[in-house]
Amino acid sequence: MREEEYIRLDATALAGLVRGGEVSAIELLELALARLARWNPAINAVVIELAERARRDAAATLPAGPFAGVPFLVKDLDGFLAGAEFTASSRALLGYVPPRDSELFRRYRDAGLVICGKTNTPEFGLVGTTESLLRGPARNPWNPAYSCGGSSGGSAAAVAARIVPMAHGGDGGGSIRIPASACGLFGLKPTRGRTPMGPDESEAWSGFVQRHAITRTVRDSAMLLDATQGYDAGAPYTAPPPQRPYAGEVGRDPGRLRIAFSTRSLFGRDTHPDCVAAVRAAAALLEHLGHEVTEAHPPIEREALVHAYLVVVAACTAGLVRQIGKLRGRRVRGRELEPTTQFLATLGEALPAGEFEFARLTFHAASRALAPFFAAHDVFVDATLAFPPPRIGEWALAPQLQWAIRSFSSVLPRAVMRRALDHFAADGLERTANTMLFNMSGQPAMSVPLHVNAEGLPIGVQCVGGFGDEATLFRLAAQLEQAAPWIERMPAEPAAH
Amino acid sequence: MREEEYIRLDATALAGLVRGGEVSAIELLELALARLARWNPAINAVVIELAERARRDAAATLPAGPFAGVPFLVKDLDGFLAGAEFTASSRALLGYVPPRDSELFRRYRDAGLVICGKTNTPEFGLVGTTESLLRGPARNPWNPAYSCGGSSGGSAAAVAARIVPMAHGGDGGGSIRIPASACGLFGLKPTRGRTPMGPDESEAWSGFVQRHAITRTVRDSAMLLDATQGYDAGAPYTAPPPQRPYAGEVGRDPGRLRIAFSTRSLFGRDTHPDCVAAVRAAAALLEHLGHEVTEAHPPIEREALVHAYLVVVAACTAGLVRQIGKLRGRRVRGRELEPTTQFLATLGEALPAGEFEFARLTFHAASRALAPFFAAHDVFVDATLAFPPPRIGEWALAPQLQWAIRSFSSVLPRAVMRRALDHFAADGLERTANTMLFNMSGQPAMSVPLHVNAEGLPIGVQCVGGFGDEATLFRLAAQLEQAAPWIERMPAEPAAH
Repeated sequence: MREEEYIRLDATALAGLVRGGEVSAIELLELALARLARWNPAINAVVIELAERARRDAAATLPAGPFAGVPFLVKDLDGFLAGAEFTASSRALLGYVPPRDSELFRRYRDAGLVICGKTNTPEFGLVGTTESLLRGPARNPWNPAYSCGGSSGGSAAAVAARIVPMAHGGDGGGSIRIPASACGLFGLKPTRGRTPMGPDESEAWSGFVQRHAITRTVRDSAMLLDATQGYDAGAPYTAPPPQRPYAGEVGRDPGRLRIAFSTRSLFGRDTHPDCVAAVRAAAALLEHLGHEVTEAHPPIEREALVHAYLVVVAACTAGLVRQIGKLRGRRVRGRELEPTTQFLATLGEALPAGEFEFARLTFHAASRALAPFFAAHDVFVDATLAFPPPRIGEWALAPQLQWAIRSFSSVLPRAVMRRALDHFAADGLERTANTMLFNMSGQPAMSVPLHVNAEGLPIGVQCVGGFGDEATLFRLAAQLEQAAPWIERMPAEPAAH
Repeated sequence: MREEEYIRLDATALAGLVRGGEVSAIELLELALARLARWNPAINAVVIELAERARRDAAATLPAGPFAGVPFLVKDLDGFLAGAEFTASSRALLGYVPPRDSELFRRYRDAGLVICGKTNTPEFGLVGTTESLLRGPARNPWNPAYSCGGSSGGSAAAVAARIVPMAHGGDGGGSIRIPASACGLFGLKPTRGRTPMGPDESEAWSGFVQRHAITRTVRDSAMLLDATQGYDAGAPYTAPPPQRPYAGEVGRDPGRLRIAFSTRSLFGRDTHPDCVAAVRAAAALLEHLGHEVTEAHPPIEREALVHAYLVVVAACTAGLVRQIGKLRGRRVRGRELEPTTQFLATLGEALPAGEFEFARLTFHAASRALAPFFAAHDVFVDATLAFPPPRIGEWALAPQLQWAIRSFSSVLPRAVMRRALDHFAADGLERTANTMLFNMSGQPAMSVPLHVNAEGLPIGVQCVGGFGDEATLFRLAAQLEQAAPWIERMPAEPAAH
């Protein structure tokens, strides 16, 4: 197969060619590895290469699973790959090699995917851009001066660069949708409990985090979710089962959906004109496609929810640091963590358990308060990000603040920690302003690459469905994909930069 | 209808007579109220009477729902009844009247049930006996010197006294199963997420608490669960849907089940010989019924789990106290709470949020560690309680300890709180030693009234099914009910004591 063909086909098509004997798994892998070698120096998308292991896997591939022989990348977070280092871009985990696969990754292998590397993330996936101290920034293939988003930034960059047709992601505040938006790709965060978290990890961030993938086509996302969804033994929760395979939703008439859209930021201040334009164009397109489209904003108690979100993330970062200590058999030192992480972990140890529980009650109540809005509307549409992708470095913590955290975070009185939390909230959550609400509610949400701004940077449109209702989203996404195809848009090869 | 007949019929049979026009809802209600008047002074099962309201409801009853016209009691906990006081047996809530029904109670009303009172509980349902300072002890109809268990103790006492054929319950550590065991009744705790918690409450105790009922017959429990199960809008989680109505499982051949049993206490020290005898007799009966019965003990890390359980309960008690403060528009004072509650709430404010998250990760991991055991066995059987019902007062906190908590709990250093926690753990969890594991794992579990000891006190046998698999439990329970019927066993009327 010629590279030109490889980069135009999605995973479903490639698997079909493998099944038909027209190309072999090893040929596809070598194409992926060649592109990786060419692109990665420019974008730093893949931080752990697994070429030899992938060659062995590809040689052993039987054309059995739905994606047999298709090259694939997993995030260095949101799942364990047996025998491969797991760092979550943290020095606290350097050298840690998990002994067995996560159930999700086992299902990837059962589906026939050939895992050829692990992708870049921010430390523990805590922020919406991929610029860790350990791994350095992953860059946007559309313009390497810009962020590819995060936390599944490395995965998105690799898919946008067409190293692989799709890659694994996880989303606790927008971490699938944001990089999909920034890189011009399709990214769906499924319903809470849809994909497995076990056996050696658990519900992360109190149920905010869901795992799935970043793809170029809607059908790849649907078929991959068919291959990975469903209860894993011993899990505390599971999502309502789908009525039929998601692959069957692609191409099915979505009917006349009741769609609400908003150009206002949910938790942030302003929405950039490029993003307003993207949403207005999407609303017009949806109306043109026959849907009942109205402008409406979901009801939220902004202050209480921002606070609750951060309390949960701080508590869960502290819990994760304890867990890493258990895993490694020694206490994690503050300086092994990035300043932001150290701040959140310290905060999670300073806040009372009762406040964490109250935060949980608060976001559960918020989710229930959204229910009438989603009874009245099948889908909510807004901008995935309230602004175009930021420049690399734009979201970095000021050096003085880094120094202050390093020096004082373990001795600061609680009241000061709280003020810092609120500062963090106002500033940091601006960046995930439109996505995080649906991590709290557990609803499925996707970023659809419908728009490109004048600078040539992608702008994603977010569509949110009812709890358990990925089906409607896949039907709608496939309709949009057909009406406004994005598959041929492709960044220039790295030599061009 | 004669009272003699009323007390022999279950809710399904009574509803059938109402539907056939052979008895009216109001007649049934008056029978219930007459029994309530006669029994309640002896057992203190009902703490809020709603006779007038129930008479209006009964008069308006249309024979529509599956339980149309059947008198029913709800616990003064685990759900809001619009317009009726909600106290959870706490002075901190005295006078609080919720403005709207919980979804569960709305479904009870839709099923045609006539709610005629609210039943006694310990404060916030924190312990396995019903002896609050506010309401005084509920007593066991089989012998009023003994506890009826808790926290759904008032409901169980009322059903055992045949005031109503079944009553509402909730179970966060055994609170349906323990009173069912103590009162010779059938009590099933469903899978996590099976019944609704909204719209104005949420997941309690991090998912430990599930709501359902205490019944005399298996079919009542099954049909009531059919009427109440399923997602409520905006809920963070929902259980896997049943394959068919549970009522249809009753009488269906369970096949040859792989059943593990144990006479050892899961978290406690010893098992009383009466309870060992109950389990051995149950195992023999199950073998006689054709099941594959083996002695086996599920794998648990006792110390870590006991600690995790208490950290969760302390954190959630603190969160609840904050929530009550919000509800009432003022801070709850420590002295409005019972000493045990005050201790737990104080502890939940003293423990770090990170420790609560780590406890959540710990019990989720324990649940996953149980999965192979429940892959190898369809059902696990042991004693619901490791001892016969305790005497009233036997589990009371020593007055010195009460005084110490009152005096010092807000000023104790964390290290002392921790030592107190471990003491509490060792002692308090002895009482829910066999039940609480399945609150942590979220699995369905039931207490079946298979045994009575030489003193005439009921001893329940616990049967635990796989996550989401109430169906197997209902099939098995109905088989046991037929093989070893308990329905005719009835405590002597109160005059006899």
